[in-house]
Amino acid sequence: MGIDSSAQLAAVPNFDEYKFVQNKYMRTKVVFGRGLHKAAAQSIFNGGYKDSRHFLVTDRTVNKFYGDLMESVFVDAGYTITRVICDDSEMSKSFGQFERICTEMLDVGFDKNSFVISLGGGVINNLAGFIASTLYRGINLAHIPTSLLAQVDAAIDFKQALNTNHGKNLVGSYYPASVVLVDPFFLRTLEDRHLYNGLAESIKHALAQDLSFFDYLSSFSGNCKSDEFEDRIIRDSIVLKTKLMSNASEETIDEIIKQYGHAIGHAIEHLSKGGVLHGEAISIGMCVSAVIAENLGFGEKGMVSIHERIFKKYNLPTKVPANISNESILKIIRYDKHFRKGKAFMGLLKSVAKPASSKESSFEIPIDLEQIGRALTACRGV
Amino acid sequence: MGIDSSAQLAAVPNFDEYKFVQNKYMRTKVVFGRGLHKAAAQSIFNGGYKDSRHFLVTDRTVNKFYGDLMESVFVDAGYTITRVICDDSEMSKSFGQFERICTEMLDVGFDKNSFVISLGGGVINNLAGFIASTLYRGINLAHIPTSLLAQVDAAIDFKQALNTNHGKNLVGSYYPASVVLVDPFFLRTLEDRHLYNGLAESIKHALAQDLSFFDYLSSFSGNCKSDEFEDRIIRDSIVLKTKLMSNASEETIDEIIKQYGHAIGHAIEHLSKGGVLHGEAISIGMCVSAVIAENLGFGEKGMVSIHERIFKKYNLPTKVPANISNESILKIIRYDKHFRKGKAFMGLLKSVAKPASSKESSFEIPIDLEQIGRALTACRGV
Repeated sequence: MGIDSSAQLAAVPNFDEYKFVQNKYMRTKVVFGRGLHKAAAQSIFNGGYKDSRHFLVTDRTVNKFYGDLMESVFVDAGYTITRVICDDSEMSKSFGQFERICTEMLDVGFDKNSFVISLGGGVINNLAGFIASTLYRGINLAHIPTSLLAQVDAAIDFKQALNTNHGKNLVGSYYPASVVLVDPFFLRTLEDRHLYNGLAESIKHALAQDLSFFDYLSSFSGNCKSDEFEDRIIRDSIVLKTKLMSNASEETIDEIIKQYGHAIGHAIEHLSKGGVLHGEAISIGMCVSAVIAENLGFGEKGMVSIHERIFKKYNLPTKVPANISNESILKIIRYDKHFRKGKAFMGLLKSVAKPASSKESSFEIPIDLEQIGRALTACRGV
Repeated sequence: MGIDSSAQLAAVPNFDEYKFVQNKYMRTKVVFGRGLHKAAAQSIFNGGYKDSRHFLVTDRTVNKFYGDLMESVFVDAGYTITRVICDDSEMSKSFGQFERICTEMLDVGFDKNSFVISLGGGVINNLAGFIASTLYRGINLAHIPTSLLAQVDAAIDFKQALNTNHGKNLVGSYYPASVVLVDPFFLRTLEDRHLYNGLAESIKHALAQDLSFFDYLSSFSGNCKSDEFEDRIIRDSIVLKTKLMSNASEETIDEIIKQYGHAIGHAIEHLSKGGVLHGEAISIGMCVSAVIAENLGFGEKGMVSIHERIFKKYNLPTKVPANISNESILKIIRYDKHFRKGKAFMGLLKSVAKPASSKESSFEIPIDLEQIGRALTACRGV
């Protein structure tokens, strides 16, 4: 055991570096490279932090594939690692699990220099991130996202969260990971459905921000599991997301773009109790948003079918599930963070890469629940 | 019901205003005045926020005295208030209560402009503050501290927290209240023991920061329940604490002064399971710290008896309770946020208002557990 740090250093493969910074307290570095997981210790600790205990937080499924491997990467580099295994599924972002994991870490003991390293999909990144933000009022955090969704979206954010019975991400914090290590290596064990699920967020960025990326996705006819496609998707999504992250606050256009399709999507995801994945749900949410935009005269003609075509191409749903009623969706939307004064404040698109703005020249457009209900009905299968 | 806003404005009594600011995201205004509770709506909302639901979070005891009164202050000014009642005692800063209160608030519903207004002692300020910092990843927060301890210390801080089985405040957040409203009116129902308990933090500020305030406390021979004494204590403590708060981070001397006596005090408080109050525990902690400083040659001769005299004068304990062993205290100290590399990093005093510094010219002095054990033994009754 133990390779010396120069050997470790030599093992670092080529990688790209990005960052998102809001102020001196809120800054995160993103490193992206194939095979970079082998150099995770160097990438995250940069040779320091050997005196502290660190936690590798993962779930049962990811642990089965990568738990031993990643623990040995850190141990071989001379680090003391305790592995913490969470339940699988979106349900594990609960108050109960928060208490259980905090208690498990406190039982083992750590200090202010300790890192929480999340290894998993968005659920694990969010849960571990919230835990890191609250233990001792904040210890170090690093993410190693293993799903495409987490690599292009969930981990590239300051947002950490728990779910509650009332909806998704209603309890949480803004807290920066020091490092997010993105390695497509982990995608080889990802089921097809989860690959498309992740693509939904990339398509969101393309639709809302980048015509040439959208054209690439529209005309692509190769293998979705090729290195070339994965690299393009991940790199473009990280570039587009980090651009939005660098001055996002709840009111800015950047935040509204990030949330495109999410108010409706979150409600559908929550109500499906795990049946509809996050990316699938926001695909439906974006289609409903396109209908709202058309009905209210914000969206150009053809935008509804542009939405439907791109999601169908990547095996993503466009219709509201039959077993989820309009009423139950509208009830959840009332609890959304962007709901106020009886209206849902949402982003809409005029055309690809052009957000719509209302009369008051705001990009956060107030929508009546009745309008949302109409669009939901229009987006049901026949 | 409902007085117009000009009448409300006219009712605002004289008050002092202080603030503590770390950056544009972390800034809190403190307003201090006798009778200011009557103008709480004006002080906190400044005429705005009438469209949102707000929460008045209190505990059973404070609710009995002031719940109806303070709710009516807000309702009469035109605000929609939901009262949330927590269990009494330090034990209520638990994971379980966190979940219960968050769920209760989500059941009722709120929005990003809603305020959590804590009405109570430090426990309620901390618990409500943690909840406000995490619901929707942060909604508005105001504190109305009702105990002397909270008025001079707990509420004058960005620190929000829960306790865990492993110790005090091990889970929490840094989060600013917009306004802290300090009114000595609430002290009229405070038991004597709790008055002295609060004085412990004022004495800490005097001992560590301000010779003239220390001289005032040492020579005072009047009534501790007089307006004059209360006003002096509260005003001087707020001035001294806000001075420390304006650039405190975990490493600075300001933070170390704030924590004087706290590593040992927290352990004793936690182990006493409610038997020893916070101010009492840190009084003992400061006495033990004085012994450590003397043993290690940091403290000037006479500092131990200076500590003992001032705490005894204000009916505060100076001895480690017989039913709490050195071993159990040292075990808790290992979980303290300032424990690393096998040492407790603590502040010590050279003399009144003069913190000691170690060779490396750091004010955070590494202390062996064995040294702490020796001092604990020296501070036991005979």
